[in-house]
Amino acid sequence: MPVETISWKNKKVRLIDQTLLPHRFKYIICDDIRTLWKAIRTLQVRGAPAIGIAGALGVVLAANSSKAKRFGGFFKDLNRSIKFLASSRPTAINLFWALGRMECVAKANNDKPISEIKKILLKEALKIIDEDKASCRRMARYGAKLVKNGDAILTHCNAGGLATADYGTGLGVLFEAKRRGRHFKVYVDETRPMLQGARLTTWELMHDGIDATLICDNTAASLMEKGKVNKIFVGADRVARNGDTANKIGTYSLAVLANHHRIPFYVVAPVSSFDFRIKSGKDIPIEERDAKEVRSVLGRVIAPKNVKVYNPAFDVTPNELITAIITEKGIFRKPYVLSLRKLRKLGYRDENKRYR
Amino acid sequence: MPVETISWKNKKVRLIDQTLLPHRFKYIICDDIRTLWKAIRTLQVRGAPAIGIAGALGVVLAANSSKAKRFGGFFKDLNRSIKFLASSRPTAINLFWALGRMECVAKANNDKPISEIKKILLKEALKIIDEDKASCRRMARYGAKLVKNGDAILTHCNAGGLATADYGTGLGVLFEAKRRGRHFKVYVDETRPMLQGARLTTWELMHDGIDATLICDNTAASLMEKGKVNKIFVGADRVARNGDTANKIGTYSLAVLANHHRIPFYVVAPVSSFDFRIKSGKDIPIEERDAKEVRSVLGRVIAPKNVKVYNPAFDVTPNELITAIITEKGIFRKPYVLSLRKLRKLGYRDENKRYR
Repeated sequence: MPVETISWKNKKVRLIDQTLLPHRFKYIICDDIRTLWKAIRTLQVRGAPAIGIAGALGVVLAANSSKAKRFGGFFKDLNRSIKFLASSRPTAINLFWALGRMECVAKANNDKPISEIKKILLKEALKIIDEDKASCRRMARYGAKLVKNGDAILTHCNAGGLATADYGTGLGVLFEAKRRGRHFKVYVDETRPMLQGARLTTWELMHDGIDATLICDNTAASLMEKGKVNKIFVGADRVARNGDTANKIGTYSLAVLANHHRIPFYVVAPVSSFDFRIKSGKDIPIEERDAKEVRSVLGRVIAPKNVKVYNPAFDVTPNELITAIITEKGIFRKPYVLSLRKLRKLGYRDENKRYR
Repeated sequence: MPVETISWKNKKVRLIDQTLLPHRFKYIICDDIRTLWKAIRTLQVRGAPAIGIAGALGVVLAANSSKAKRFGGFFKDLNRSIKFLASSRPTAINLFWALGRMECVAKANNDKPISEIKKILLKEALKIIDEDKASCRRMARYGAKLVKNGDAILTHCNAGGLATADYGTGLGVLFEAKRRGRHFKVYVDETRPMLQGARLTTWELMHDGIDATLICDNTAASLMEKGKVNKIFVGADRVARNGDTANKIGTYSLAVLANHHRIPFYVVAPVSSFDFRIKSGKDIPIEERDAKEVRSVLGRVIAPKNVKVYNPAFDVTPNELITAIITEKGIFRKPYVLSLRKLRKLGYRDENKRYR
């Protein structure tokens, strides 16, 4: 059963504080965009689709807080808030996609009363949530066909219910395969520094009764060499036009290792994670985060306090290392430059991305 | 300056408790082999050469505690203790090498009074320490030639002064290069689960004024892809006849990644880490350690308490991924089956290894 990671409750945004899981389950209520911005920045809500939803609901909060009586003033308020929300995290494209879409909807209704536009914006944000749910289910159905009895699957970070409005991207595939009666086991990379694998993915898989085994990130290669892993499923924060994919730091490492051991490497991502404006992964901005995340583990210092740190939150996997990309519009394979052109025609609205 | 990781003080073994570093510097005094066994098992002392020294000094403790008056009884006591010490950790060959060497020395002096044999055993253990110091220096001199100005070097785990009686294997090379005025920087893998890189290697490098940057284990591939690393130096826990090398979990991963990115991958190990009795890495027993090490970080639980864990302490890097092996007898290159045959003739005493 998917958890309700992020939702609209009593005119506020309610989200699970993912920094406290798995030991504490606690909701955060955001009734202003500063609180929401902080929730995104500090990873209380994370995962590309969930961040997109947070952005859309943030626009609703911003709209509702505007006291402007006319569209000009209202749109100026909205725009300022959208720019602020866009500054929370740079890599996952879903945030900019959702913010751009909300802005377009406001603009398209500029002739309506402000109170009406506010309702329309809420409706659009809820539609984004519904669409995300539906796309999770569709990706899962396509992906589940790739899971066979006896598989030993490796995953990295968290591409589950906590990263989306429903049951996830990479993990959604596994939940659906389980529902179809497939027997398989899953190895979970702990995913330093923020331990999304250890804290969130194991929690979700165990909750669903899936056989999950936690490993340190540096153990994946050894598992592959021993033949203990035969498929890899991960999510994505941004996919370029040529299929190059940004995802949590360590994903590129897995892709190279999978390639060396001839293990299929699958990316699962909704259309909202694609960025057709950029030619390749070189154009994806990679967030570098605070040294504290590496120098300490959940607040406990593990290294000399003043040691230098390099802490990129993401890396880019070149398309040639990706066996297939699973989307809600089907499974896409090499050459991605050609196959993703078809995807673009099927469901992509380019004009919605302007806040990168 | 090397730290005195393990030494013989006032008829006892004194060692730095490495589980408390870098935050606390504390010595442990072992005056019985049970305390020493626990120190080895719990990684209070670790690193293949240092474990070998611990084993040798343990034999001295065991000898001194024997109340036997004749060689038969004395040797029986010694043998029991040696077997017990050998059960502390299975992978690093240096332990078995040192225990075997001490046993041979006892046997070779079976005609002498027990009190005399005890003195000879202490002398032999101190000789092992001196030899380790000398071999650290020699390895460092050979290896330092490979370090150039402007290098960006990656290392994994701790192959420094804390792993040996002097200034280390992999890190010894860097200390020597620094002493020779080379300018370079070092990236340090944190090395989950026990964080020897984050806790020990950064501490040693910073102490020596070497430019050190800490990264999570899963970040190494991304660094390589960006061209930010051009050489890798690691230690070894056991090297087989064909050059296959067991070292801290994650080393094999680095070797595959280095190979993909065409980055030289160097192993630095004294002759006491070679096991010529085994043909390949397949014969090296790999220690699996407690799930707690992965489920928690320095005592802080980071995952569901009952999650399954796979926690091998080592992996095996096949010889073809190793650019060169640096020993105190010189630098050895492919094909290792041939080059290591020469090393064997130069300084290896096969009969000393019987407690594996």
